[in-house]
Amino acid sequence: GYARVDHHRSLRTGLPEAVYAPGKTPDQCAALVGELLAVDGGPVLLSRADADQAAAALAHHPGATVTGDRHRLLAWRPAPTRPGRTVVVSAGTADLPVADECAATLTALGLPPARLTDVGVAGVHRLLVDVDVLVEADAVVVVAGMEGALASVVGGLAPGPVVAVPTSVGYGAALEGVTALLAMLSSCASGVTVVGIDNGFGAACAVSRLLGPGAGDGG
Amino acid sequence: GYARVDHHRSLRTGLPEAVYAPGKTPDQCAALVGELLAVDGGPVLLSRADADQAAAALAHHPGATVTGDRHRLLAWRPAPTRPGRTVVVSAGTADLPVADECAATLTALGLPPARLTDVGVAGVHRLLVDVDVLVEADAVVVVAGMEGALASVVGGLAPGPVVAVPTSVGYGAALEGVTALLAMLSSCASGVTVVGIDNGFGAACAVSRLLGPGAGDGG
Amino acid sequence: GYARVDHHRSLRTGLPEAVYAPGKTPDQCAALVGELLAVDGGPVLLSRADADQAAAALAHHPGATVTGDRHRLLAWRPAPTRPGRTVVVSAGTADLPVADECAATLTALGLPPARLTDVGVAGVHRLLVDVDVLVEADAVVVVAGMEGALASVVGGLAPGPVVAVPTSVGYGAALEGVTALLAMLSSCASGVTVVGIDNGFGAACAVSRLLGPGAGDGG
Amino acid sequence: GYARVDHHRSLRTGLPEAVYAPGKTPDQCAALVGELLAVDGGPVLLSRADADQAAAALAHHPGATVTGDRHRLLAWRPAPTRPGRTVVVSAGTADLPVADECAATLTALGLPPARLTDVGVAGVHRLLVDVDVLVEADAVVVVAGMEGALASVVGGLAPGPVVAVPTSVGYGAALEGVTALLAMLSSCASGVTVVGIDNGFGAACAVSRLLGPGAGDGG
Amino acid sequence: GYARVDHHRSLRTGLPEAVYAPGKTPDQCAALVGELLAVDGGPVLLSRADADQAAAALAHHPGATVTGDRHRLLAWRPAPTRPGRTVVVSAGTADLPVADECAATLTALGLPPARLTDVGVAGVHRLLVDVDVLVEADAVVVVAGMEGALASVVGGLAPGPVVAVPTSVGYGAALEGVTALLAMLSSCASGVTVVGIDNGFGAACAVSRLLGPGAGDGG
Amino acid sequence: GYARVDHHRSLRTGLPEAVYAPGKTPDQCAALVGELLAVDGGPVLLSRADADQAAAALAHHPGATVTGDRHRLLAWRPAPTRPGRTVVVSAGTADLPVADECAATLTALGLPPARLTDVGVAGVHRLLVDVDVLVEADAVVVVAGMEGALASVVGGLAPGPVVAVPTSVGYGAALEGVTALLAMLSSCASGVTVVGIDNGFGAACAVSRLLGPGAGDGG
Amino acid sequence: GYARVDHHRSLRTGLPEAVYAPGKTPDQCAALVGELLAVDGGPVLLSRADADQAAAALAHHPGATVTGDRHRLLAWRPAPTRPGRTVVVSAGTADLPVADECAATLTALGLPPARLTDVGVAGVHRLLVDVDVLVEADAVVVVAGMEGALASVVGGLAPGPVVAVPTSVGYGAALEGVTALLAMLSSCASGVTVVGIDNGFGAACAVSRLLGPGAGDGG
Amino acid sequence: GYARVDHHRSLRTGLPEAVYAPGKTPDQCAALVGELLAVDGGPVLLSRADADQAAAALAHHPGATVTGDRHRLLAWRPAPTRPGRTVVVSAGTADLPVADECAATLTALGLPPARLTDVGVAGVHRLLVDVDVLVEADAVVVVAGMEGALASVVGGLAPGPVVAVPTSVGYGAALEGVTALLAMLSSCASGVTVVGIDNGFGAACAVSRLLGPGAGDGG
Ligand SMILES: Nc1ncnc2c1ncn2[C@@H]1O[C@H](COP(=O)(O)O)[C@@H](O)[C@H]1O
Ligand SMILES: Nc1ncnc2c1ncn2[C@@H]1O[C@H](COP(=O)(O)O)[C@@H](O)[C@H]1O
Ligand SMILES: Nc1ncnc2c1ncn2[C@@H]1O[C@H](COP(=O)(O)O)[C@@H](O)[C@H]1O
Ligand SMILES: Nc1ncnc2c1ncn2[C@@H]1O[C@H](COP(=O)(O)O)[C@@H](O)[C@H]1O
Ligand SMILES: [Mg+2]
Ligand SMILES: [Mg+2]
Ligand SMILES: [Mg+2]
Ligand SMILES: [Mg+2]
Ligand SMILES: [Mg+2]
Ligand SMILES: [Mg+2]
Ligand SMILES: [Mg+2]
Ligand SMILES: [Mg+2]
Repeated sequence: GYARVDHHRSLRTGLPEAVYAPGKTPDQCAALVGELLAVDGGPVLLSRADADQAAAALAHHPGATVTGDRHRLLAWRPAPTRPGRTVVVSAGTADLPVADECAATLTALGLPPARLTDVGVAGVHRLLVDVDVLVEADAVVVVAGMEGALASVVGGLAPGPVVAVPTSVGYGAALEGVTALLAMLSSCASGVTVVGIDNGFGAACAVSRLLGPGAGDGG
Repeated sequence: GYARVDHHRSLRTGLPEAVYAPGKTPDQCAALVGELLAVDGGPVLLSRADADQAAAALAHHPGATVTGDRHRLLAWRPAPTRPGRTVVVSAGTADLPVADECAATLTALGLPPARLTDVGVAGVHRLLVDVDVLVEADAVVVVAGMEGALASVVGGLAPGPVVAVPTSVGYGAALEGVTALLAMLSSCASGVTVVGIDNGFGAACAVSRLLGPGAGDGG
Repeated sequence: GYARVDHHRSLRTGLPEAVYAPGKTPDQCAALVGELLAVDGGPVLLSRADADQAAAALAHHPGATVTGDRHRLLAWRPAPTRPGRTVVVSAGTADLPVADECAATLTALGLPPARLTDVGVAGVHRLLVDVDVLVEADAVVVVAGMEGALASVVGGLAPGPVVAVPTSVGYGAALEGVTALLAMLSSCASGVTVVGIDNGFGAACAVSRLLGPGAGDGG
Repeated sequence: GYARVDHHRSLRTGLPEAVYAPGKTPDQCAALVGELLAVDGGPVLLSRADADQAAAALAHHPGATVTGDRHRLLAWRPAPTRPGRTVVVSAGTADLPVADECAATLTALGLPPARLTDVGVAGVHRLLVDVDVLVEADAVVVVAGMEGALASVVGGLAPGPVVAVPTSVGYGAALEGVTALLAMLSSCASGVTVVGIDNGFGAACAVSRLLGPGAGDGG
Repeated sequence: GYARVDHHRSLRTGLPEAVYAPGKTPDQCAALVGELLAVDGGPVLLSRADADQAAAALAHHPGATVTGDRHRLLAWRPAPTRPGRTVVVSAGTADLPVADECAATLTALGLPPARLTDVGVAGVHRLLVDVDVLVEADAVVVVAGMEGALASVVGGLAPGPVVAVPTSVGYGAALEGVTALLAMLSSCASGVTVVGIDNGFGAACAVSRLLGPGAGDGG
Repeated sequence: GYARVDHHRSLRTGLPEAVYAPGKTPDQCAALVGELLAVDGGPVLLSRADADQAAAALAHHPGATVTGDRHRLLAWRPAPTRPGRTVVVSAGTADLPVADECAATLTALGLPPARLTDVGVAGVHRLLVDVDVLVEADAVVVVAGMEGALASVVGGLAPGPVVAVPTSVGYGAALEGVTALLAMLSSCASGVTVVGIDNGFGAACAVSRLLGPGAGDGG
Repeated sequence: GYARVDHHRSLRTGLPEAVYAPGKTPDQCAALVGELLAVDGGPVLLSRADADQAAAALAHHPGATVTGDRHRLLAWRPAPTRPGRTVVVSAGTADLPVADECAATLTALGLPPARLTDVGVAGVHRLLVDVDVLVEADAVVVVAGMEGALASVVGGLAPGPVVAVPTSVGYGAALEGVTALLAMLSSCASGVTVVGIDNGFGAACAVSRLLGPGAGDGG
Repeated sequence: GYARVDHHRSLRTGLPEAVYAPGKTPDQCAALVGELLAVDGGPVLLSRADADQAAAALAHHPGATVTGDRHRLLAWRPAPTRPGRTVVVSAGTADLPVADECAATLTALGLPPARLTDVGVAGVHRLLVDVDVLVEADAVVVVAGMEGALASVVGGLAPGPVVAVPTSVGYGAALEGVTALLAMLSSCASGVTVVGIDNGFGAACAVSRLLGPGAGDGG
């Protein structure tokens, strides 16, 4: 095989088996997905696949759901839906690829989220009309670029766990996501946690960890 | 009063009412603690208090537990213990002040943690002997400075939520915690989330959010 | 004299004559203030003066108002109040020294501001109750550290000019104000402008510029 | 629709409704412009559109003015000219795309500016011959890359509000605009305010805020 | 000739003569290789060659071994194998191009390494099963991107020299290798040394230095 | 005990047992040294101890050699001298505390070094007169601040392993050692490796690793 | 015209009239060159021109000398040679485009330089054989990337003015020239001055300033 | 002796022998000065000396001139005045310590400068009244902090060599001199060269190099 696949990880940590496509050939992508599907168990993902990588993987392993375009995600053997009200909140249209990757990963993990989109804080009333969704959520993912202020506002409204994903959206002083990242880490709303820039996948994994193991991943 | 205290926050978000002492006079600290205690409810904390600030607050409001020295935390009206096995893992002796602040906050929130200390990854066998503690935890906080590698190793061993706290421990290329911060955000262990540098308090709040409301904070 | 004082500046730009105290001896401070008072005209300020600098300046030139403590400002010959509803909004208690310097400078310039303090975005309802103050203001200064999200929320609520002052409040990933600075510059609320870190004085000058010359400065 | 358009913003803040094209498909651009035009009111802008995005938007919604090339701006329903002498000052030829975006936005907002171009400070006499334009302006926007020194010189000559736009012009130590940004924020000319790198649009919005509502945006 | 080739270096420092291809024309590459081969002695390398550069060099100077694809290395006149158990450990699939450049350089220097691949610390058991390889090695090279934690774990297990190579693998907060670089420099495993980002070639040279001169380079 | 001492490390990696004093109380220092001395084996070090920490450790555990002042190092149970010609080269007077820490650690490890001091590259002849020392060395440590150029020159002259230690010497653009660090990592002399800023201790450990186990540490 | 050409600059400062091509259309380049040639006087340069820009300028204004490829420079009306022994020293092959731009500018200014190429400090003997050239020079330009150490060594050997040009040569920790820039600014050789990254043109202008006005530029 | 003093440097490079006091004991300062004075030749300097260091050096070696306070400079055996009109221009009062160190070094080197102080660009008329001094100078040093714009304006007015010294004056976004440094390196005035932050000494050495050897240093 191309790699020493860590077959025990999904058992140990309740996370999906995932292949990160960038830098791999279409053949490598297909082969790695095959190795993961050969083991019984939970969901298998191929993330950030371009058109060729996706086509190769689907040709060898049909039946995946395909989501997104710039951050294309393929999911085989999705987990059955498990309890847990999850929400993905995103600030602007340009944040959607990251938010969609997060939502698709959550769905594959059995945790299909509600969505609040285009609720950037420059028009805070847009968020406030949906405050009930935030208050009742078991986990909230906030996806925002530029100044990342949405994480602080959501963190003040939602009582449950809030995972913030800074995005590389913006130009100039947005510094390709570093500004949003630093801002989210410095949030005045206590108890907000942060993952890496554009890492919608990681935020979904964090939510999966905290909502506990589902049927699909060994629980 | 000195400040517009947000009396509704603990109800809304299950977090403690807390006063951050640095930059405030002893009198301001005492007065702000008093305003928070005047409202019925959960725990009230004074964090990072120096000796004078602590003395003033205790003189006006006796009965607090006092923890730590460099990051001194005072807690009034601690929450009753609630379900949830929490663990605070720390890398070296120098990370203890941050880890202790986290543990004291968790205790005040009704979630007294188990502790694994001095388990830096340069001697990974020290961590492996306690792997069961990690596997069975409902939430793990990892506190590490320097290169912050402990978060990745713990994230690979613990199946539940892992919150990483980078510390400013180290010198030179450790860049006062920025190195550990970036490393934790780039962790190859998916689903690890991160709070700000030295923010043991914030990590405890994140754990409180994900373990749900306890008796002490309105649940 | 110690310096080539730019006597024409207040005429040219409608700004106060100001001496920035740090790095000057008490004698130099007193002498420079004296040179500025020797010219007819508008307000004369001594900013960031420590106790000795302030005492020396007052001994030679009595009659100044003194504001603040960490950022002590002395003002001689304040301008008469001129039209213009100004507001200084600040996020937390620790931002007060910068907000106070800004307010004292505005007052000396004839533009005494309304104040909204302790309205950080983690409890956004605290700001919303005072939205009318923002809507009716002729100019708003927003003072915030940590993640600086307050600038975006205020920028979305206030229709008039909004000047944001990042502060060095916070620790770790707040990077001594750089995080708030970058966030404010990347604000999703269009048309918010920004001054340097902790520069409450500069924000007041910007407001003075945009509200036009007053009686006190040559207009 | 593709997005939760904030229809109330132009009423609330006197700003244009604007769509930022990068990262959107031509169809999305056209549709979003359509949603904004469907509401009565002021100017509607499409900024940073490439040729395809512009063509799609114009095909569905004819009648826009089109300005610029690298930072192409389309404007529908421009506001009638309103009082206010605005000036856009720029340092070099390479700064023109940003300066032009600013000028086109101001024009759409009813505030067509005078222009001073190619007045970089290495030949300061070029600026001094036009000092009257600066002295009489109600608002000045300064657009400069490299070391951004123009903002300080203009700030010392113009008595009214000065908004500085750092550009990403230059190479090497210009750090894609960060150097000009930091320099403008550190300007020794008090009361100069700054927007993000290359953000000519934001500077125009800032000017619109401070000159008050015009006929076109609800005033 | 195109350059003042330092013919004495291999004698002086036990290092290979190497041409770094990027920025050179195919003809320049071929000519420089020729100049180096014209001198008696040890191995001659052409590193980071693209397809055209490699073809030109091989056309003029046949007989090279060619390794890799993204970091293509050509080696003429490889050194005979000399004593020294070397190991190249790498974290993930994406780190392979750098690890392969290192291994190919070591092989050309007469030090063909054992390989441990795909042993990232999120599944630390993968590394532990091969701990004997680390314990018995005379020199270990660790190649890892993202958070670079592998260097610390290996540094704690291997008693001999450990050279760490940070890679630019990862996105967002991985900062194109800077995060791994800083982390490796801050390693809690004492005595780990570090080379530049993606510098697999340099790590091989470092190993060659410490294992002493071989038959091929003048020893 | 205060800490989970890693008693097996010296056996596993041929490194000294060391306590890093900063941030520990004198009592903690003494106790930790005691725990290490209680185990049979090689050298025990206390590094960066201030006067109080040194006094406490010596009072409880007499017999240590004490070296240096700003970076004071105490060594108990030094290893017998083992084969290996080591050299510590340093650039300027201000680099001596780091170079001395390195030399004292090497001495405790049984590898007392030759010293070349004050041989900064601005007077390269000072280094060239001692080139034989470099050519014959089994390992060279280069200690330099400011621009760190000494590492490249030494790396070109010495055929054996060269470990570079950037120091925080210099002001302004020296950026507290970051400039020297980056320069050393970018050295045009291939195969130079680097440790963290001011980390003379780490460089000595690296040398110990590569010269193999001595009598004092289990070999 | 496209720009407010500063016709007096060459008179005032003894510098060439120059057009920086990047970001301009071929037509703009030709027109700007024409405006400069229309004034009597010294050399006129077009720098960093691509093939189209060069062709357009030459078609309208024949007779220029053309130098280089990646940093192509066109020079009209070169100055007669004037007194002054100038030298351009460069470290590696990859630094040649910047060194060539510098040399071509010097030649156009009447100061054709001697050249020392490929004298990187990893083989310091290559530089020492030409030390006489350095000792007798009236001005030396040092061009180096990576760690930029060449500036310090040359600065210690040459008694006259030394201008250092950091280049963006290198990868990883070379940070696109920032490392060499910082190193040159921190040089232990006193009195070395520095220009911006890759700014061979600027270094030539600096040399022209210090060698005084020549026949071609008004002197 | 404490250090390997480079006795040949002043002969080789026309620079003063200088001891940089910070980090040395008073005794070391006195001894090093003594070693330098023991050799025949030019000026000997002790820079950045505190009161104790200065006293010790003067006690052992009377007769030095002492300049400045924060950057105290002692000079023995000053060079006779040599031809060359030098000027030191500085922006604000807070830049004076650096400007004074530069002027005192120039004086010791036989090049006593004219001074233009307090001519920051926010009041550009202050500089223009003295433009003749700049036009006739053989070398100009510009000392400025904050945004460093003064270097560009002076560079456009002075035809001769201009050496810029960024200072650490300013707060917040001035980044302790990094902002001024980057701005000066990016100056739109061609041919301005730059030395390190606060390095008034280095700028004087650069001027000495370009004005050629004087009687005092071997010429
Ligand atoms: N979109 C993604 N973003 C971040 N990490 C990912 C992503 N997709 C997969 N991963 C992680 O990357 C690892 C797979 O890397 P590889 O072995 O190179 O395919 C898995 O452990 C995943 O946890
Ligand atoms: N608190 C302050 N923050 C920033 N700038 C200030 C402050 N106080 C005064 N200034 C400016 O500093 C200049 C005075 O500097 P100086 O000539 O050194 O006293 C004046 O032009 C003021 O505009
Ligand atoms: N892949 C590589 N990475 C880093 N340095 C290299 C590499 N390949 C060759 N070199 C070095 O680059 C130098 C050759 O540069 P050049 O003279 O430009 O061909 C040699 O001294 C090698 O040590
Ligand atoms: N104020 C100063 N700033 C920068 N470099 C200095 C200064 N004073 C002396 N130096 C340089 O520092 C070196 C002396 O360093 P040291 O041998 O440590 O005393 C001399 O070569 C001087 O060129
Ligand atoms: Mg939107
Ligand atoms: Mg320990
Ligand atoms: Mg508060
Ligand atoms: Mg121009
Ligand atoms: Mg893998
Ligand atoms: Mg010295
Ligand atoms: Mg070469
Ligand atoms: Mg002044």
